[in-house]
Amino acid sequence: MGGENRKQVALGVDIGGTTAKMGYVDHEGNCLASGASVSTGAKQAPAVFFKRLHEAAEALRTGLPPGHEVIGIGVGVANGNYYKATIECSPNLGWDYVDVRAELGKYYAVPVAVTNDANAAALGEMLFGAAKGMRDFISITLGTGLGSGIVAGGKMVYGADGFAGELGHTVVDPDGRECACGRRGCLETYCSATGLCRTVQELICTTTTPSGLRGICYEQLTAAKVSEAALGGDALAKAAFEACGDALGLKLSDAVALLSPEAVIVCGGMAAAGDLILEPTRRALEKHVFPVFRNKVKVLASALPEGNVAILGAGALIWNELDTAR
Amino acid sequence: MGGENRKQVALGVDIGGTTAKMGYVDHEGNCLASGASVSTGAKQAPAVFFKRLHEAAEALRTGLPPGHEVIGIGVGVANGNYYKATIECSPNLGWDYVDVRAELGKYYAVPVAVTNDANAAALGEMLFGAAKGMRDFISITLGTGLGSGIVAGGKMVYGADGFAGELGHTVVDPDGRECACGRRGCLETYCSATGLCRTVQELICTTTTPSGLRGICYEQLTAAKVSEAALGGDALAKAAFEACGDALGLKLSDAVALLSPEAVIVCGGMAAAGDLILEPTRRALEKHVFPVFRNKVKVLASALPEGNVAILGAGALIWNELDTAR
Repeated sequence: MGGENRKQVALGVDIGGTTAKMGYVDHEGNCLASGASVSTGAKQAPAVFFKRLHEAAEALRTGLPPGHEVIGIGVGVANGNYYKATIECSPNLGWDYVDVRAELGKYYAVPVAVTNDANAAALGEMLFGAAKGMRDFISITLGTGLGSGIVAGGKMVYGADGFAGELGHTVVDPDGRECACGRRGCLETYCSATGLCRTVQELICTTTTPSGLRGICYEQLTAAKVSEAALGGDALAKAAFEACGDALGLKLSDAVALLSPEAVIVCGGMAAAGDLILEPTRRALEKHVFPVFRNKVKVLASALPEGNVAILGAGALIWNELDTAR
Repeated sequence: MGGENRKQVALGVDIGGTTAKMGYVDHEGNCLASGASVSTGAKQAPAVFFKRLHEAAEALRTGLPPGHEVIGIGVGVANGNYYKATIECSPNLGWDYVDVRAELGKYYAVPVAVTNDANAAALGEMLFGAAKGMRDFISITLGTGLGSGIVAGGKMVYGADGFAGELGHTVVDPDGRECACGRRGCLETYCSATGLCRTVQELICTTTTPSGLRGICYEQLTAAKVSEAALGGDALAKAAFEACGDALGLKLSDAVALLSPEAVIVCGGMAAAGDLILEPTRRALEKHVFPVFRNKVKVLASALPEGNVAILGAGALIWNELDTAR
């Protein structure tokens, strides 16, 4: 027990539909060791999964500097419930209900915190990234869907049931595109990697604009291909990004009216498109926002390294818990 | 100085466009003395107004039980800024910028807090009313416009600039009705006393439904008259309330997706219409809300006495400050 000169680290775990990735994160947001992963694809009992997770984390720990101390574990996972530290009704993982704190408690005697991946990303931005020092902001993760995390007055907004922050399921058009949630016109059907590809199909249908994307079938289309085409000057691809940003800016204007954030931080795979998506988002937000908030709200790209956002976010979750408790 | 057996009270002040009302509020939410008011209509210098306010408050104080102690002053006012305890750009009052804490500091040596009237109403519900014990809820004030206050994790959401909570200026239809804010289709143009009366005109135009309201010109029409007609069975008046609740439920579904509140509390003059407005709101909310939140969010009428909501809210504001600081 070295006391003050022990290097304190948090174990950050990001559990996805196919793999769980992990890394050790220090108080300054450095990822000291990462790269280990455990598959989640094959349906396996939670107890088996967490045993394998622990083994991989221990193996990874050998790469840490001597004298380190693991002070807590943060877990980011879709359908993660912060209040109960559980995973509930996760179709991707095939789990109905998992008490994450109990499972990890078999191997560790440190604090454990759980939340969904989008909230973890928001905390990563707050502690280590583009929202450092901000007390009010919205973080948006643009991946297959659109996840979001809301911080108000320096605190993560979890809501009454722990599931707050579903900007992706605010509605652009109640008669619009079918959404996996069973409704129509949710923002993520317009603004997300999938939403972008759907918009390309719409533009192929509604316009006569020539485009290299007309030669790619929907199943083969990806946001990266649309981005590449747009950067190469493809007008239809650019129009698709415009429409994507329009929808995001419109719904952000409502969120801003409710929350008055200092900034909106955009991360996730699609954020790599940079101003292709950020510029139309800014324009639409300024166009639609309640006048008192005009020219006040920054729209920023994530300042975290893309590959490590989820692990840093999970690490930030538990660092934030411990800092708040001090 | 009687110490423990002194009765502690807060001075709650509600500054409106024509009068400022005040009262003394104890820690249990009893309004021990109220009824005093000072006119705000004639444009007067802030220093003059606050001197008159102090005189009226001192006169009112003679009605309090002996041995009481005024522990703080809460002020609810449109365009009140919580962070700076100021009133900014208030067209109704003819004031550009007033440092409320400095003005009241001339007469009192107790803590002063300021926020807008809708936030004060939310705090009133949290401490004394329908949201007692709730940590996540949205309060809505239906008056001439639609004000709202958001509480998340037990804290009022003020946002980066102090002006969060503008549900009334989230947008139902970007091509919809002209709003005083300069945009189109804001919720308050559909759901508020004014919005209800505008909807009556729309229904007079678009339907052939017989109605006693066809004999009342727009300038003479009030929400109370529409309510009276609806209670008397007037189909057009009932349809107007339906449309009003539809719009509110639709925009609440977005707010619920972001905030996951336990309840929505409706107060203000129009809340007196009760289920005429609450029932269609509940139906529309359940119809439009993200499935994970279905059957979870209560839509409740205010539990505070209508005439004293604003004073109780202003009192709650300062009680909440002092309780939090303890």
